[in-house]
Amino acid sequence: MFEQSFLAIAERYKVVFFDSYGVLKNYKGLIEGAQATIDRLRGQNIAIRVLTNDASRSQEQQADSFSRLGLHGIEAGEIVTSGMMAKHFLEQKIRDGKIAYLGTENSAQYILQSGLEHIAVRDIDLDNLEEISAFVFLDDEGFDWNSDISKTVNILRRKVMPVIVANSDRVYPVSRNDVSVATGGIAELVENMLSKKFIHFGKPDSQMFIYAFDQLNHRGLARKEEVLMVGDTLHTDILGGNRFGLDTVLVLTGNTRKESVHNLIESSGIIPDFICNSIAE
Amino acid sequence: MFEQSFLAIAERYKVVFFDSYGVLKNYKGLIEGAQATIDRLRGQNIAIRVLTNDASRSQEQQADSFSRLGLHGIEAGEIVTSGMMAKHFLEQKIRDGKIAYLGTENSAQYILQSGLEHIAVRDIDLDNLEEISAFVFLDDEGFDWNSDISKTVNILRRKVMPVIVANSDRVYPVSRNDVSVATGGIAELVENMLSKKFIHFGKPDSQMFIYAFDQLNHRGLARKEEVLMVGDTLHTDILGGNRFGLDTVLVLTGNTRKESVHNLIESSGIIPDFICNSIAE
Amino acid sequence: MFEQSFLAIAERYKVVFFDSYGVLKNYKGLIEGAQATIDRLRGQNIAIRVLTNDASRSQEQQADSFSRLGLHGIEAGEIVTSGMMAKHFLEQKIRDGKIAYLGTENSAQYILQSGLEHIAVRDIDLDNLEEISAFVFLDDEGFDWNSDISKTVNILRRKVMPVIVANSDRVYPVSRNDVSVATGGIAELVENMLSKKFIHFGKPDSQMFIYAFDQLNHRGLARKEEVLMVGDTLHTDILGGNRFGLDTVLVLTGNTRKESVHNLIESSGIIPDFICNSIAE
Amino acid sequence: MFEQSFLAIAERYKVVFFDSYGVLKNYKGLIEGAQATIDRLRGQNIAIRVLTNDASRSQEQQADSFSRLGLHGIEAGEIVTSGMMAKHFLEQKIRDGKIAYLGTENSAQYILQSGLEHIAVRDIDLDNLEEISAFVFLDDEGFDWNSDISKTVNILRRKVMPVIVANSDRVYPVSRNDVSVATGGIAELVENMLSKKFIHFGKPDSQMFIYAFDQLNHRGLARKEEVLMVGDTLHTDILGGNRFGLDTVLVLTGNTRKESVHNLIESSGIIPDFICNSIAE
Repeated sequence: MFEQSFLAIAERYKVVFFDSYGVLKNYKGLIEGAQATIDRLRGQNIAIRVLTNDASRSQEQQADSFSRLGLHGIEAGEIVTSGMMAKHFLEQKIRDGKIAYLGTENSAQYILQSGLEHIAVRDIDLDNLEEISAFVFLDDEGFDWNSDISKTVNILRRKVMPVIVANSDRVYPVSRNDVSVATGGIAELVENMLSKKFIHFGKPDSQMFIYAFDQLNHRGLARKEEVLMVGDTLHTDILGGNRFGLDTVLVLTGNTRKESVHNLIESSGIIPDFICNSIAE
Repeated sequence: MFEQSFLAIAERYKVVFFDSYGVLKNYKGLIEGAQATIDRLRGQNIAIRVLTNDASRSQEQQADSFSRLGLHGIEAGEIVTSGMMAKHFLEQKIRDGKIAYLGTENSAQYILQSGLEHIAVRDIDLDNLEEISAFVFLDDEGFDWNSDISKTVNILRRKVMPVIVANSDRVYPVSRNDVSVATGGIAELVENMLSKKFIHFGKPDSQMFIYAFDQLNHRGLARKEEVLMVGDTLHTDILGGNRFGLDTVLVLTGNTRKESVHNLIESSGIIPDFICNSIAE
Repeated sequence: MFEQSFLAIAERYKVVFFDSYGVLKNYKGLIEGAQATIDRLRGQNIAIRVLTNDASRSQEQQADSFSRLGLHGIEAGEIVTSGMMAKHFLEQKIRDGKIAYLGTENSAQYILQSGLEHIAVRDIDLDNLEEISAFVFLDDEGFDWNSDISKTVNILRRKVMPVIVANSDRVYPVSRNDVSVATGGIAELVENMLSKKFIHFGKPDSQMFIYAFDQLNHRGLARKEEVLMVGDTLHTDILGGNRFGLDTVLVLTGNTRKESVHNLIESSGIIPDFICNSIAE
Repeated sequence: MFEQSFLAIAERYKVVFFDSYGVLKNYKGLIEGAQATIDRLRGQNIAIRVLTNDASRSQEQQADSFSRLGLHGIEAGEIVTSGMMAKHFLEQKIRDGKIAYLGTENSAQYILQSGLEHIAVRDIDLDNLEEISAFVFLDDEGFDWNSDISKTVNILRRKVMPVIVANSDRVYPVSRNDVSVATGGIAELVENMLSKKFIHFGKPDSQMFIYAFDQLNHRGLARKEEVLMVGDTLHTDILGGNRFGLDTVLVLTGNTRKESVHNLIESSGIIPDFICNSIAE
């Protein structure tokens, strides 16, 4: 765990998994030097995947967003989102009924296009829950917190059903200093009110790592020791990467700041294999 | 812990502490027979106190509310609210600056009339927190959850200050089946986002029991074994009463239902001394 | 989620994952009818895997143990243990130093045969931790709880290192009524003392599911919807199976009893696809 | 919250509450200058109370211990222990049966002399729990952790009864660097195994503050704003003192070290009114 050049580290691996927010981009836009780093890795035939705790947009929408920011060459098929994991889960496990959701209509259309009907919390009749077969926390936007959070508690008090949290991040950064409460934070509030635990998708849970690794591994591309996970957050990227058995790099362009990084590692016990200022240094 | 007549039990004590919501009244109005029970206890010179986890209204407003519901003879001075405890705390511990709050303007005026200025979260400038000396969670109403909960997180990330939760109830009942997320639930969400614990007022914490007991005890009216606590909620009324050393009655007119009461006692380990259908039976 | 014949359900799948304790055997010995069920599935070319939260014995030792109980035909290679997962993790992530452990010498030899030296907590010199590079919670036996639990706390207060919990079960059954505190319970005590979270192996975490599924999947044997997970515990087998995307059967021969199964499902929100009395019915 | 002379602060109050371990004494013996500080306060007629989370020894045994260390003039009646609070609770709430305990015979005799029989966990017959009416966690010594912790879990799984934790400290210091798991830590392990919360005595809970304050207050000696709480631990002494409405001094001769004090205050949100190096400076 010593600070060094990101490229010198990354070039020892066959595959690099990048977190998106705080690593490739942040609230100001693209991380300086990101394009050069991606191009350099491509030039050496190092495979790239982006693993993002985001359930609000599809792979294509994510890829477009990188392009608009000026980062070119990330293909939709290289992006793995926690929303995709939730979508697969629903397809495999929920066979009939309507899926209730908290989030935007856009996020619902993307995740819930599995042939099942979806219904926003605001449109649910509490006295008629028979058809509701599952509940998904999709996004922190698209609903009225004052009314719909309590309504969610009451839906889940009245009927036992599988509950999925499509993005378990509790906060996301909105500026250098400030954060916003995210889907995972709202889901946790509801879990506490009900004394239950929902099914969470997104790092640090293993599903996205499995998905990305299996894709590569099936084609004989890599073993775990040949994959590097790069992230800005100890509790999601680094914990998840470590637990899945990957080497991990913590970068300091997002949630974790240089002045507090060693205190945070000591207090959390989550230890990256490497620490770099950014993916460009 | 056997079911029996409430009056037969209560008449063995010199003082009875009543919870308000779920015991004297509920979402439908006054509990049937409440007036007769209060009158009967008065007739035997048994002192009465109402201990309520409510920070939205003053003692006088609470007493008026009982009168309007048709319950007469509860005086303002016999009511102890968690809001009063928060008020005393602020008076003793905060000597200057402005007190930030989440709640209604009415609740702020009542609790924060201690000579200190108060300011709603919506009116706070995040870049100018110098004058803010404390933060109070007052009520679940009076603010926009979508914006002000995240803003609260950011205020408390930027400046370390004493944070008070004037009512630690996490939910309150709004009908036979449904609940609403309460101040304590919102405060817990913010605590989790910050990984901090705030100072909570309200049962099961001891402050209201101390206050009510001291008032009586100073006049030589009672020892602890002469006081009975009556409530509808195991985790607040009964746990708080037991821990303070009082005998406790659980009534089944509020949060706890007859069909699940024994399961709840077993799973929580919180054991009332007596269980009664209501204060009228 | 309705009760029905186990075989009628299982015969619809290509692969069945069994939990061991509470499903194939329990404190009294083999579950009645287990051999007939295994034979029947074999006869239909249904692949079988045993996924067990056990870090005290190797695959071979587990297979021998089934034979001695009278259950024949479970091969070592069909058994997946949480200990194997911990072993793989250590091999991939820890490259030098000594691995400290809490458990029996036997469990240490089996898991830690990766070329790295291991050292029992009792033999560690608190003033000389330089060489210690990782810590593993292996077993609840083989050490003196009165002295070695506090010593573990102090080792981990003095030096930050990766900490692995090779079996995250908190209790295990020792008779019809009674349990014993297990490795996961001791690890949780230490986590709480340190305010840290360790890396846990064993259901409900995904590693064992991934491992078993990848083995089969690589040979083209199965998709997730063709795999059935059978377990006796909601919080490990059923939650883990559901989260991994498998169909799940809860059997009532272990931790979950018929009289409380519906209450437990309601209170936990963890919903199996099927409930059966046992794998023999 | 600025560092200054302890005596200059203390002399503004009528009463000073001292924590014992880490304030008046520590693992090395008496805190240097403690006698002079106590004598100076006595000389100005400032009342003194010692509030200690200790359930292993009586007031007299505590007073003797101060004398033997060389601190003279602390009378038994000025010492308030968490064990006394547990004793009062048991006297008021448990009227028959035997009280089961985990701890030393000495601690049991002192706390349980209330006329009720007591019985050590090791001597309890799991199949004969009828007479057991309550359970007390008294001390971390006096029993075999390997056997008696699991036995405690099984006793409390088999019978619902009031469970008291006579000292809720989770660890205590045994040297400059090292700690030992304390009664509160063991009780928390059992709470987690059972998913229950027990009744805890000791700071930060209010009972000891109430007891000490009521004694003084009844004689008209003090109002809350005239009482100063002095402690070395944010989560017990300072949180408890703040919540009870007292002014608080954090000293740096115990659990909290100078180099980390500001980080700890920021991360916990528990803010003492004053910080002093020791009670002698």
